[in-house]
Order: sequence, then C-alpha cells, then structure tokens
Amino acid sequence: MNFYARHQARLDAADAACRARAAYTPFIESPSGKLHPDGAKARGLAWFEGVRGGRVEDTGPGVFAVADERSPFDAEPLGVSYAFGEPDAIFGAVTRAWPEWRRATPEARLGVCLEALDRLAAAIFENTFATMHTTGQAFMMAFAGSGANSLDRGLEAIVYARRAMADVVSEASFVRRFGANEVRLDKRYRLVPRGVAIVIACGSYPAWNAYPALFANLATGNPVIVKPHPATVLPVARAVQIVRGAIADAGFDPDLVVLAPDHASAPITNALVDHDATAIVDFTGSPTYGARLESRADRLVFTETAGCNAVVLDGASDLDAVLDALARSLCLFSGQMCTTPQNVFVPRTVRDGDRAAPYAEVRDRLVAAIDRVVADPRVAAGVCGALHSPVTAERVDALAASPRVLRAPSPYAHPEYPAARTRTPLLIEDDVDGTAHQAEQFGPVAFVVPTEDRETALAAATSEAQRFGAIASYAYSTDPAFVARIEDAFFDAGASVGINLIGHAPLNYTAAYSDYHVTGLNPAGNACLTDLAFVAQRFRIVQSKTEL
Amino acid sequence: MNFYARHQARLDAADAACRARAAYTPFIESPSGKLHPDGAKARGLAWFEGVRGGRVEDTGPGVFAVADERSPFDAEPLGVSYAFGEPDAIFGAVTRAWPEWRRATPEARLGVCLEALDRLAAAIFENTFATMHTTGQAFMMAFAGSGANSLDRGLEAIVYARRAMADVVSEASFVRRFGANEVRLDKRYRLVPRGVAIVIACGSYPAWNAYPALFANLATGNPVIVKPHPATVLPVARAVQIVRGAIADAGFDPDLVVLAPDHASAPITNALVDHDATAIVDFTGSPTYGARLESRADRLVFTETAGCNAVVLDGASDLDAVLDALARSLCLFSGQMCTTPQNVFVPRTVRDGDRAAPYAEVRDRLVAAIDRVVADPRVAAGVCGALHSPVTAERVDALAASPRVLRAPSPYAHPEYPAARTRTPLLIEDDVDGTAHQAEQFGPVAFVVPTEDRETALAAATSEAQRFGAIASYAYSTDPAFVARIEDAFFDAGASVGINLIGHAPLNYTAAYSDYHVTGLNPAGNACLTDLAFVAQRFRIVQSKTEL
Repeated sequence: MNFYARHQARLDAADAACRARAAYTPFIESPSGKLHPDGAKARGLAWFEGVRGGRVEDTGPGVFAVADERSPFDAEPLGVSYAFGEPDAIFGAVTRAWPEWRRATPEARLGVCLEALDRLAAAIFENTFATMHTTGQAFMMAFAGSGANSLDRGLEAIVYARRAMADVVSEASFVRRFGANEVRLDKRYRLVPRGVAIVIACGSYPAWNAYPALFANLATGNPVIVKPHPATVLPVARAVQIVRGAIADAGFDPDLVVLAPDHASAPITNALVDHDATAIVDFTGSPTYGARLESRADRLVFTETAGCNAVVLDGASDLDAVLDALARSLCLFSGQMCTTPQNVFVPRTVRDGDRAAPYAEVRDRLVAAIDRVVADPRVAAGVCGALHSPVTAERVDALAASPRVLRAPSPYAHPEYPAARTRTPLLIEDDVDGTAHQAEQFGPVAFVVPTEDRETALAAATSEAQRFGAIASYAYSTDPAFVARIEDAFFDAGASVGINLIGHAPLNYTAAYSDYHVTGLNPAGNACLTDLAFVAQRFRIVQSKTEL
Repeated sequence: MNFYARHQARLDAADAACRARAAYTPFIESPSGKLHPDGAKARGLAWFEGVRGGRVEDTGPGVFAVADERSPFDAEPLGVSYAFGEPDAIFGAVTRAWPEWRRATPEARLGVCLEALDRLAAAIFENTFATMHTTGQAFMMAFAGSGANSLDRGLEAIVYARRAMADVVSEASFVRRFGANEVRLDKRYRLVPRGVAIVIACGSYPAWNAYPALFANLATGNPVIVKPHPATVLPVARAVQIVRGAIADAGFDPDLVVLAPDHASAPITNALVDHDATAIVDFTGSPTYGARLESRADRLVFTETAGCNAVVLDGASDLDAVLDALARSLCLFSGQMCTTPQNVFVPRTVRDGDRAAPYAEVRDRLVAAIDRVVADPRVAAGVCGALHSPVTAERVDALAASPRVLRAPSPYAHPEYPAARTRTPLLIEDDVDGTAHQAEQFGPVAFVVPTEDRETALAAATSEAQRFGAIASYAYSTDPAFVARIEDAFFDAGASVGINLIGHAPLNYTAAYSDYHVTGLNPAGNACLTDLAFVAQRFRIVQSKTEL
C-alpha cells in the first residue's frame, strides 16, 4: 500500500499553497450534509454517545481508568476510560517501535502521515462531538476550527517536513584530484531523527497545535508520546487511535505514537519531559509551564503560550462594522482562543467616517455591540460555546468585582444545554499603565484602555507585545501614513498584526499555508506554525563516504 | 554598487554544488605563483612583516593594546596592537549599527557577504602568514585549509542562508470567502533577525568555523561580535577589518561587525555571552566551555567542541597504503584538527591483502609509517607545522611518561624556524576499556587499542563516539558485509564515517558543499556545517495582513 503515491498530489498542492501563501484547503469546512457521506454526522454523534461510559482502545500500554472529563455543555462526566501507562512502560513502547520507523524512507513516513490525516478527516464528526464536549467549543467551531483548520495545520507541517528533508540528497558521487590522484567517493547521507518527542496538548483547542507537532515529529522519524490535558482526552485519544491505525496498516509498529493521559491529581508531564530518553517537547499551554520548558537547554523545545493581544483603534470609515467585528471576536469561543484580542486601546477620539467619536461613546458602542451578539441565546450558543474550565468561570466572576467593569459577564442561557458553563464577555476599563491588562486573562475578559492619542495607543500596544507577549494584534486606521507606522511598529516589536480586518470574520481566524502563527520574538512562544525552523531541527544528518 | 548582482553567479554555482554535494570551489587552493597576481605572496608576507609591532585599525571601538600573540614558529611575540573594547562599548556600537541592516533586503545583505568573501580571497596571502604565525599551521595548510577551504565554508553558509530566507515570500495576496463576503487581504512577511551574535573563534583553526558563523549571522541580518582566541587574533582581526570594509562600501555602518579581543589574563567571553543583548552564540573550542554555553537555554547556541575520533582497522588490500594514510593524517598539523583520528582500534589480526597480519606487527608498522613521514625535517615541517599552544606541548610531554608509549613525541628540527614548537605524534597503547583514550587529547597524541576482533573494535568505536563524541571516524575493511555493518553502526551512533579512504589525502579533509561537518547527535557539538538548521533559526518571521 503506497500511501505516499496515493496522497502526493494533495501534498504538492499544499506545498504550492505555502509557496504562494494563498488560501487553500483540501478539507471540508462546512458540516452541510450535502458535502459529507450520508449519515456521517449521525454516525459521529452515535460514536460519541456510544463511547461515553465506554473505552477508547488501542492508544498504547496502560491500565484502563476513567479520565477527569466532564462536558462543559451538559455538565455530566464523560466517563470514558483510557489506558493510563506508567512513563517507563510508555517510553519502552515507543522506543521498541522506533528502529524501523527511524530507518524508513522520508516518503514512507510522509505517506503514513498523509494517510493518517485523511483518516482523521473521515472521522471529522467524531472529532467534532469529542471536541465540543471536552473543550466547550460550539459545534461549528469544533467542526471547522478543530476540524479542517487543524488538519490544514497538520498538512502544512508535513509540507515543511518534506521541504527540510528534501534539502538533503541521499547520495552523491564526489570526484576530485588530491595531488596526483583522482579520487572518487560514494557519499551517503542519512536523516537521523532526534529521539522521543513529547507533544503536550492544551485543554481548549488541542488539535490545532497537536497535529502540527505530531506530524512534524512523525514525518522526520521521531516517536511521539501525546500528553492530553486531563480534562480534554477524548479528541486526542481518538486522533491517536486513528493515527496508530494508519501506522499499523503501513506495516509499522503502532506504538510509535502513544497516548499518555493523566489525572489532574497525579500529573505525569514532568516525568515525561524529564525522562532521559526525551529529545523534543512541543507544548501549548500556560506561560508558567512554558517557561519551565524553555529553560531546558537539553531538549529541543517548541512552545506556544499566551500573550495579551492588543487592538489599536485609530478609526474606520464605518466604525460600527469594526465594533461588530471586534465584539464578535471577543465573544467567539468565549475568548478562549490564543488569537482573541484582549486590550482595546482607544484614543480620546476615534475617526468614524467623517466625524470624530469621543472615547466614552466608542467604549459604550463596543459594549452595545457585544450585547447585540449575545442577545439571542441561539446566536450566543453558536458563537460563544461554553467555558472549558470551571477555573476560568471562577476567575471571570472574581474579575467582575472590579470597580471599573464596563460590561458584566452574565451567563447566557444555552437553548440546548441548560447546564452549560457560559459567560458572555466581561469588559473592564484599565489605565494605559494599569497592570490588570498586562497579562493574558484567559477566557471572556477584555479591557478597554483609554489613551491620550493614537500614538500612545500604538506605543502601548507594541511595547506590551514585546514585554508580555502577543500572538495576534489588530489595528484600525483610515490614515495610510499611520497604517505604515502601525506595520513598522509591530514589526519592530516582533509581533504580527492584522489591519482593518472587518469582513475577515472571525478576525482572529488564522490560515494555515498563509499565516505564520507565533513569531518567536516575544514571550508568547518560541515556535512558529509553520516555518523551516519548526521542522529542520527535528532530525540531523549523518553521512558516510567510501573511497571507490 | 550592486554586490549581489556582481556575485550572484558564484552563489548560484555554490548552491548547485550543495544540491549535488559535489566537489566545487571558486577559490584558489594552490599558492602557485602562476595562479595569483604577480607578487601577491610577497605582498602578503610584507603586510605580515609590516604589521608585526604595528596596529590593525578599523575593527571597532576600544583602546589599542598589544595582544598575547607569539609565533609558534619563531617564538617571538607578534607585538600587534588591536582595539580592546569594553563590552558595553562593543554592544553599543553593534546595536547602533543594526537598524539599517535589520531592514535591508536579503539580497543587499547576501551581496555584502559575497563581496566580503571576495575581498578575503584577494587577501589570501595575508591571511596565510597571519594564520601560520598564530596557529602554528604550516604554510600550505594555512594557505589552503584556512584559505580556500574556509572561504568555501563561508560561501556554503551564505548558500543556506539564502535558501532559508527564500523559503519565505515577501508578500502574498489572499482571497477567500468568509460567509457571504469575499475578502481580499494583502499579506506581508518580514524576516526579522534575532539580535546580537557572538562568534567565538578557536586558536588553532579560526577561519574554518568563524566564517560560516559570521556570514550566516550577517546574511540573516544579525550584528556580529567576533571574539578571537587571545593568542590568535591577527587573522581574525584582518578578516573583520576586510568584512567591515565591504559593509562600509555598501553604505552600511561597519560597526555591524566588531572585533572583541581579550587577554588570557582578563577574559571577556563570559561578559559577551551573558550580556542581555546577546541572542546567538557560535562557539568552537573546548567541551567544557561548550557545555557551559549549551546549558544556556536563553540563547541560540551553536557549538563544535571535540570528540575522540576512531579508526576501525579490519583490513585492506594494501595495508601499507592505509598505514601511510593514517600516519600522514596523525602528523598533519600535529593532530590539532577536529577531524584528526585519535583511537586506532586494531583486532588481533588485520587483513593485509592475502595474509592476516597480527596485532603487534600492525602496531609496529603504524609506528614505522609515522617515522617515515617525519624522517625528513623538510617534509615534517610541511606536514606537521607547529603546536599552537605551549599547553599542548606540556600535555604531550606529560603523556609521554606513560608506561605504554609506542612512539615518543620527539620534536623535529624545523629547517626554517629553529625555535619552532614542534612535536611528532605520540603513540600510546591503551586497553579497550581504558580511560586514557576516551576523551580528546588535543594535539599529536593517538592511541592504538588492541581488540579481540573487528566486532569489538566496531562496538568500541561507535559506543565511544556516542558517549564521548566524534567529529570524524574512519574504518577500513575489504569485506563488503562488514562495510555495511560499519556504516549502519556509525549511523546508529550518530557519527559520520569515512571508509577505506586512502587516496583521499589527507583523509581528514572535509569538503564544503559536500561533507556535513558535525552531526549534532553526539557530544562533539550541536551545530552542523552547514544544514538548514544552522541558518533557519537565526531569523524569525513577522507578518501583517491588511484587508483591502
């Protein structure tokens, strides 16, 4: 079964998209029944309902136990059991599975990765329901964001893995004269993977970062231990199971990829990261744990943590359109995305078409725009979804006691799941030198920060990006000269910026093949999805030369 | 002056050589008068004689003082003065010079690097004499190894820098539908260099590693502080001066590259490495200091340190040819190259054409082969050169007190420089589990290690490569099945191997564009000259997207 030949055209198309940085996806972004096999959605739901209280088999060694999962929508435990392995057993399994994979050709490995992606795409509705009821993502986001958009990020990583590996020829004939002798050498170059890779997935959006890390590691020959968040195991376990199936069908040992679940009460991440055999760690999660990992000079560490994303609001020809886009973005998945804006810097006056709108008016119109998004519970449910973690709900509620609250985070009533853990965006006013907004507040929390003028707004936004991190920043202006300064200032701060995004909805959407995600130049992480640096270090080159 | 256009054909040719891993050089490897402008060698010598007791100007800020240099050949101080800058002044200078370079196009930066290489090539005889009288390299090695071969490594790094940068387009048009809207975005991608780079050159072979690091950093936009070994400043200072000239002639601030000399009694390396502004460190030198650097997770660190390079001697159709090649390699630059073999593993019997030569005979024939190389002082002078450091001479003399000495390191009489610090190879016998051979002994020291059989020899050589590091390993066998096992065993150990190299003289020659130098998979260093990983991390990508 030549998986590479079967999928090569798709990989070539994705490579071309990466070259042009153009819009592309081979996956289906809409759940419309017309685009999927008959009954696909119903089968996905049936699988999810069947697995509740059941088991996910074939994810690696261990003793079956129920994980800490509870649906943010129906508030019931998922009750799914997984194999919980001891670290030594897990490392033993991946290490035993490694040798054949290590020596496999790049094409064989790329083929397995592409086949695995294809099977993940075929199981998209299973992933959708598993993702919804662990992360709190609404159906559409779980379907598209954790589906096609995440598969695209995985495919993009495979593109870059192929590019980096293809840069090294496998053999060469070397002929030159040394003194009187013409010497002929046969040279052979082998790509040697680094070793066991740990992929630590986050609880709220696991597929988007885990797929690129998983496939970048696998494609370059490294065995992978996937450590899910203790409350978001199911979509990760199902993905691991599917990937293992593709590996086995290609004739390799499925233990190349092993799931390593743990309980919040007995975390094993340190034991995995600190294990002697660990060579690579990919992490998405908190800045605190990310910093611990980034201090490990003896591992190859790729992180995406968090930033406090800014919006610089100078003006727009239609300010309501901007405020609507911002409001929708603040509501989207209850602000639990790494690209959600957090700090809206608003000068004394903001250009709104022909007039100058004063700060207080703009602030109030933003509040009203949010109110409009969440007014209808059906719309709110589709946009906001639920809060992944009770900790987030508690923190939002605590922040709501601030004396400068502009908008309270009152829950909306989910029309389908009355027990859903919901909060609408909390909006707080903060001073430009206030510390409240100068760190990520995960979840539906945003700050409106009044500034003297647009220059102060830009200076604060870029300086904070540099000091506290930023994954996505936004700016709005109708003044071309100021737009140019915005671009330069964010470039100098090492932060990417989206300018005048309105129809680009949601504005925090990030496109695989086109948008580089995380710059590595500010504290929000050191890894970029996806550039050559994300893959080129995951293998090394060993050569032989033989005189003929 | 469009330096890029002037030199692009050369860069393209070098890129093609890297793709094919073929033999290539645009530089002149022979000092023959016919190949150089009239009087070039005499002018190089005159420059060197003129600079002794004089000054090298224009290398950056500082107060002029005489460095610790003393010729290993004539034993006289060089007496050359250089600007010794305080770290803060040096960082101030490179930081002030940076902004324009940071924003320059890749082509502009590549062009300056290529022009600088060209000027270094034109000054090859100056470099030759400066290198000889600091490192101890003999004339021919200083000319070719520290000349063309090192320039080639620099050009190769520029090739890879261009490849990595060219992987990122500078702009894109992104069109896709979001719901009912077709959205058009202008996207721009800027390559952002990481920051101040420190290049720490070694004392015995500075150009070969410093050029790649210097040009990889410059091409990707980083300012560079070059820290020479306190006893090998002159060739590095002259190179810095020349590179600064090319930078200035292109209209940039020459302080982009600054020399940071120090005295052995007052080292400044730690102050440079630990400075807050430092982002990148390239280091060639001792494993101890390399390990200190490799533990710095907060810098991008590239190291080449040392290994204990093995030779596995199973047999040859003409064993004398092998022993002659080995002997010559052990003598070459008095064993002060990172690719010099150190531990010769010799089974009980070694195949020599039709017969099986017993261990003791092979051992004695190796000693005799070395004796032949150094018998004629004129030949010895050309091959061995002198010892870079008195510390090496002292260590060799101390090791010569070993009870198992096979060959004493008696000095040869240099025909031209009676005061030259010379030692011929010290050969010591060691057990396979002996610790004497299990670490690099820098300089003319090698070990003959008897083993039960060839399998034991191979197992010891590869296991030691993995545990103690190896930069180059060697093996000889006439048995194709064993050759295949050799290749596999070294690949598994993460060590590159040269097999049956005889006419390939010197066998420890490593070809830019063709040989990957250092695997990064064993303790001998983490950086490879040159792969994509050597350059891809030296810059990051920042993007903007603007809705139209």
